[in-house]
Amino acid sequence: MSADGTWNIQYLPLKLVDPVPSDIAISRSQTPKNIEQLGREIGVLPDELDPYGKKKAKVSLDVLKRLQHVKDGKYIVVAGITPTPLGEGKSTTTMGLVQALGSHLHKNVFACVRQPSQGPTFGIKGGAAGGGYAQVIPMEEFNLHLTGDIHAITAANNLLAAAIDARMFHESTQKDDALFNRLCPANKQGHRPLSAVQKRRLVRLGIPDVDDANQLTPEQRVKFSRLNIDPNTITWNRVIDTNDRFLRGIEIGLGPSEKGHTRKTQFDIAVASEIMAILALTTSLADMRERFARIVIGSDTEGKPVTADDLGVTDALTVLMRDTVRPNLMQTLEGTPVFVHAGPFANIAHGQSSILADKVALKLVGEHGYVVTEAGFGADIGMEKFFNIKCRYSGLKPSAVVIVATVRALKMHGGGPPVVAGAPLKHEYLDENLELVAGGCDTNLRKQIENANKFGVPVVVCVNKFSTDTDKELEMVVNKALSHGAKKAVVSSHWSEGGAGSVQLAQAIVDITSGPHPDFKYLYPLEMSLEDKIATIAREIYGADGIELSDEAREKLKRYTQQGFGNLPICMAKTHLSLSHDPTKKGAPTNFTLPIRDVRASVGAGFIYPLVGEMTTMPGLSTRPCFFDITIDPETELIDGLF
Amino acid sequence: MSADGTWNIQYLPLKLVDPVPSDIAISRSQTPKNIEQLGREIGVLPDELDPYGKKKAKVSLDVLKRLQHVKDGKYIVVAGITPTPLGEGKSTTTMGLVQALGSHLHKNVFACVRQPSQGPTFGIKGGAAGGGYAQVIPMEEFNLHLTGDIHAITAANNLLAAAIDARMFHESTQKDDALFNRLCPANKQGHRPLSAVQKRRLVRLGIPDVDDANQLTPEQRVKFSRLNIDPNTITWNRVIDTNDRFLRGIEIGLGPSEKGHTRKTQFDIAVASEIMAILALTTSLADMRERFARIVIGSDTEGKPVTADDLGVTDALTVLMRDTVRPNLMQTLEGTPVFVHAGPFANIAHGQSSILADKVALKLVGEHGYVVTEAGFGADIGMEKFFNIKCRYSGLKPSAVVIVATVRALKMHGGGPPVVAGAPLKHEYLDENLELVAGGCDTNLRKQIENANKFGVPVVVCVNKFSTDTDKELEMVVNKALSHGAKKAVVSSHWSEGGAGSVQLAQAIVDITSGPHPDFKYLYPLEMSLEDKIATIAREIYGADGIELSDEAREKLKRYTQQGFGNLPICMAKTHLSLSHDPTKKGAPTNFTLPIRDVRASVGAGFIYPLVGEMTTMPGLSTRPCFFDITIDPETELIDGLF
Repeated sequence: MSADGTWNIQYLPLKLVDPVPSDIAISRSQTPKNIEQLGREIGVLPDELDPYGKKKAKVSLDVLKRLQHVKDGKYIVVAGITPTPLGEGKSTTTMGLVQALGSHLHKNVFACVRQPSQGPTFGIKGGAAGGGYAQVIPMEEFNLHLTGDIHAITAANNLLAAAIDARMFHESTQKDDALFNRLCPANKQGHRPLSAVQKRRLVRLGIPDVDDANQLTPEQRVKFSRLNIDPNTITWNRVIDTNDRFLRGIEIGLGPSEKGHTRKTQFDIAVASEIMAILALTTSLADMRERFARIVIGSDTEGKPVTADDLGVTDALTVLMRDTVRPNLMQTLEGTPVFVHAGPFANIAHGQSSILADKVALKLVGEHGYVVTEAGFGADIGMEKFFNIKCRYSGLKPSAVVIVATVRALKMHGGGPPVVAGAPLKHEYLDENLELVAGGCDTNLRKQIENANKFGVPVVVCVNKFSTDTDKELEMVVNKALSHGAKKAVVSSHWSEGGAGSVQLAQAIVDITSGPHPDFKYLYPLEMSLEDKIATIAREIYGADGIELSDEAREKLKRYTQQGFGNLPICMAKTHLSLSHDPTKKGAPTNFTLPIRDVRASVGAGFIYPLVGEMTTMPGLSTRPCFFDITIDPETELIDGLF
Repeated sequence: MSADGTWNIQYLPLKLVDPVPSDIAISRSQTPKNIEQLGREIGVLPDELDPYGKKKAKVSLDVLKRLQHVKDGKYIVVAGITPTPLGEGKSTTTMGLVQALGSHLHKNVFACVRQPSQGPTFGIKGGAAGGGYAQVIPMEEFNLHLTGDIHAITAANNLLAAAIDARMFHESTQKDDALFNRLCPANKQGHRPLSAVQKRRLVRLGIPDVDDANQLTPEQRVKFSRLNIDPNTITWNRVIDTNDRFLRGIEIGLGPSEKGHTRKTQFDIAVASEIMAILALTTSLADMRERFARIVIGSDTEGKPVTADDLGVTDALTVLMRDTVRPNLMQTLEGTPVFVHAGPFANIAHGQSSILADKVALKLVGEHGYVVTEAGFGADIGMEKFFNIKCRYSGLKPSAVVIVATVRALKMHGGGPPVVAGAPLKHEYLDENLELVAGGCDTNLRKQIENANKFGVPVVVCVNKFSTDTDKELEMVVNKALSHGAKKAVVSSHWSEGGAGSVQLAQAIVDITSGPHPDFKYLYPLEMSLEDKIATIAREIYGADGIELSDEAREKLKRYTQQGFGNLPICMAKTHLSLSHDPTKKGAPTNFTLPIRDVRASVGAGFIYPLVGEMTTMPGLSTRPCFFDITIDPETELIDGLF
């Protein structure tokens, strides 16, 4: 590291090939640096780096303490306009931008992205982070297992699930005395010592200062021993990191040993677990433990919330998740650092990579450096949740937002025919059509820029260039973006040129963040009622006239407010294919009321999530999943067909 | 490394404390060497070592190629007499023995042990490998996640499970043409190219040399497309590494999207997966892929086996399991190397650590070194399967067997009162009682020694010393062991003294293995019929008069023989608490017929397993699981209550 804190880092030169080869071919053509070398280059001490093989490593949170005196770098979030079902390249832009800031402008820069779910990788062709000459490498390490964080989440989630059903079973098959005696067994001296988690339950029941359960009255013993979980209120599902549609609806407890105590429930994909959302939003291992304690798994027969702490499992979950709080270090194709850490569902959760990765990265890059993080889905969902949920819990203030647009998506918003995955693109998308482009810019792009400006954060619009785009189309997007409120607008060709194709974007970010820090503000205060918070997002961000609550949704909002969760932020579960709730409505729809079908709570993660329509939490396998094309050479260990 | 191949290794001195502290206290009192240092010391090249943090690492199978000219070391298996429910210290003896051979006799030595299942760790107090001053460290790394092998097994197992139900669903909801067109989609040129796994299915159907599915006749298309799995024959269960009794019996497919295609099935604990047995028995990544291809998940409606390869998932499983073939390196309390690799269930599978770990270790220690591996359960199960299954697939020839006995277990076999976990020991076990000891020596110990001798392998009996044992009792066991056919018999106090307490045992191993290699032989040839193989084990090893097959078992043996699996070895699923099928019968029972309730096949792993009684494949959680006592300090990250 040089005296001014600039990293002395070895960049990896690209050998650009035209036409651009497949993602996996490009990924393989580059030899990544040994991860310990990268760690040294960016100022991570050897003691703070735990390699997992030679291409990935976990970085200790000790960095935060050691560098607490260092000022944070600039904090950039990459969002996008409402995408087509094909995606518009937010991840690719994120990688192109950091490759340009690092390898070309020689700034300290970090990308922070989500870890993908492994399940869908074997159903449909797997996603990499980025594509073309803007990628995280090696792609197969990124997509498979990584350092085991999602596996730990599965283990923790399912331990809690097993604890719920086992507890209900034991409560229903044991009389009061037997249950109490088993929960608080007497030692040789006849005392019944309580464990720490049991004492916390007594405190919550208003019975503090008890060390020996013998001191409890008969009534208190029953109150303590019986959680009386109402099975109909349980919202905690089991999870698995496999696309297994037959687990969407199951009945459990059919074995003879469970004596007829059956229950209907379901499995979700692992990344939909609240444990994943907690990993993404936590700020330390201690904070994570507190969030686990607060997890509400359902209500008791009196309507009171039952928590993971009531079940006694808080610290066990923390033990299983101990290593996951450390962000996972990888690198881009050009050798700049990337944290791959946490990947909560973007529909029922907030869809952001972790706060901890961003925090560690902001210290490592230092005051003159840059951290670029990505917000899942379109800006109406991803950016809104980034600002209102993630930044609220982290306390971090964003410096700028990049809104990624493509001529293709803009044409769709301007009235072009539907874009369908798997089907060939219609000619409107292959030939110049300025009218459609203008229509998209004046509706969806305009609205997404205006939304970002509501938070006080300056906007750079990045047009992710495709080979079919014409100069006139690209010029129009740039001009329209500026007239609709973007501070800067540039065309970027990172997919075909890597960082070299993103230098203009990188320079725009440097320029826009060189002044004083913007006056960032949240869209709503937490003190607002849950209903008003939902309505605010619907009106201000989606352009709705208001919201319509179902009876069930209204009932839930009332219950959550009574239970003391009224001051949590809102995490909308809405389609990302429209600013409205209707995926067929493109552009910037108006004159609609947003229907709220139901409401759920992730109290541990710390948000209430209203359901706008049905959200699938378990993908399936098609008749011919991509695993038919997957091959591995047992000698070279090279994998084909996965990406 | 010195000129004669002896390692230049730093041993970790023990500071023995009396009375012996808790396992976790001892584990924490020792600072393990950095795993990269240990790798260097034992001759693993830096390129062959992938650290996972600083205390564990994966070792590349490239070692096998690089050291192919090196002669294998001596190969020692540790087995035991029939144990009490408390266990008699096979793992502790394994660790004590290698600590003595290494740190005290300065031999090159490796221990190879199983990875424990994580699920039970949160139900009952977790097991470490070993205990007292003979342990693998650090204990929490050993017990939690390790390098993710079990998580990979879960992912692979469940991908196959999801593929089965999805395939049955798609076959039942699509007409012949639609199904064929989806399985073999046409490309732009109208060709229907087949993937490698699809071509293999055509070869099995007797339709070779087809590259374009358009060449198939209508009949061939149906034959190719429809697996026609008979749902009643499916033996492939889903798995999870959690003690979740409510998944012992479940019904799946209850979601509306599955249109009423429900099915009853179950989850097993992850280590019960056949994928785990395959990991333990495989000899290379290529061999593993072949075993995956052969996995039989059930039969079609004509009674023919349906394989993982028919489902198209072979290489995808191999991709998920790619990293797992590399053994995991850890260390003992005294700094000698340990491989922790694979841990198949010892009841329905063969219960041995991996062949690959043993093979790599045998090359690393070299001709004058020692590899000590452990066989799960009593010798009648563990040792028999080690010889007849593991050694058969590995081609390795054992040099000696250690049979671990305790005065406690011998007294039980001699007629002592039942030993019950959790209940205080009766006075017979605390006071000197030579009559009971003699009874145990003349029955169970005698039979287990005789069994070992049937394989031509010399026996060392190790009496694992407890503080309540008297000199006369110990002396009696030693003398009786020698008179019943052991080549050597020694008392060992590794639990309280570490390697120093096992020097006599180590010296006995050195002595007994210094001559020519023993004339090892299997108990039965593979060509024998399945029924005769089962009867041979029952008569020769258990002391039964013969076997009695249920109708179901007889039917299955017939079917497996017809399907071509008659030449597989046998993996008995029998209680480990008696030489017979009745856990209450101690000593060496005679005059009994072994009932075979049912028979199953693990064709990929490569064995047939007869079920003698009910075998639980999913543990549960009690009213007060040990997680109530688990705590973690978020600052120091120290875990308590787990062990």
